Amino acid sequence: MSDALDLEALVNRYLSTVAAGKAADVAALYAEDATLEDPVGCGEVHIGRQAIEGFYKNVEGAEVKSELLSFRAGGTEAAFMFALTVAGAMRIEVIEVMAFNTDGEITSMKAYWGPENVTQLG
Amino acid sequence: MSDALDLEALVNRYLSTVAAGKAADVAALYAEDATLEDPVGCGEVHIGRQAIEGFYKNVEGAEVKSELLSFRAGGTEAAFMFALTVAGAMRIEVIEVMAFNTDGEITSMKAYWGPENVTQLG
Repeated sequence: MSDALDLEALVNRYLSTVAAGKAADVAALYAEDATLEDPVGCGEVHIGRQAIEGFYKNVEGAEVKSELLSFRAGGTEAAFMFALTVAGAMRIEVIEVMAFNTDGEITSMKAYWGPENVTQLG
Repeated sequence: MSDALDLEALVNRYLSTVAAGKAADVAALYAEDATLEDPVGCGEVHIGRQAIEGFYKNVEGAEVKSELLSFRAGGTEAAFMFALTVAGAMRIEVIEVMAFNTDGEITSMKAYWGPENVTQLG
């Protein structure tokens, strides 16, 4: 029943869960066999919920704020731009693409950003 | 030599070629076996340069302006947001994701937008 999924609500839940900072909670939003590539192009793809939790462990504990800037839905996929502010000191603007299964779990996530999208805050 | 590709320049060339309006010229930016999905989620994927040219034939002749709003590169992929203005009457803001081969040809294009991203002008 993918038509019934509110992908923008799922993306907002994802962003608020990332900001809340618990790696296990973020990983729980992903399907068991999901894939995560962040940033795209660095050559590393995290496969499976356990590996994905490990990825989010790296940023656990940081004071993070998230803000959805633009959102596009297409079928069971979403593309969106958002800003992450870390410890009030650094702002990163990212474009992500996510696919979802019919249960609303994230099956793949790809994050597009680079050093040129990171701003040091005054 | 993907590291040598300037993906932002390739995306800007794509957008200006779309605005120039010749379907064959836009199709020539794609690899022979490229895929195109626009919009994502409508269930139709155009496969191969000839089918892609057919897709762009649909909009040939319209007076189109394009403007790159945000750009992210990741390896041989790019994600970007842009605005298309059609006949000065309609503005569409789209997020696209493209992959490129080492010759700089587009191997896949996915466009994320929907009716909610179309604004009637003036």
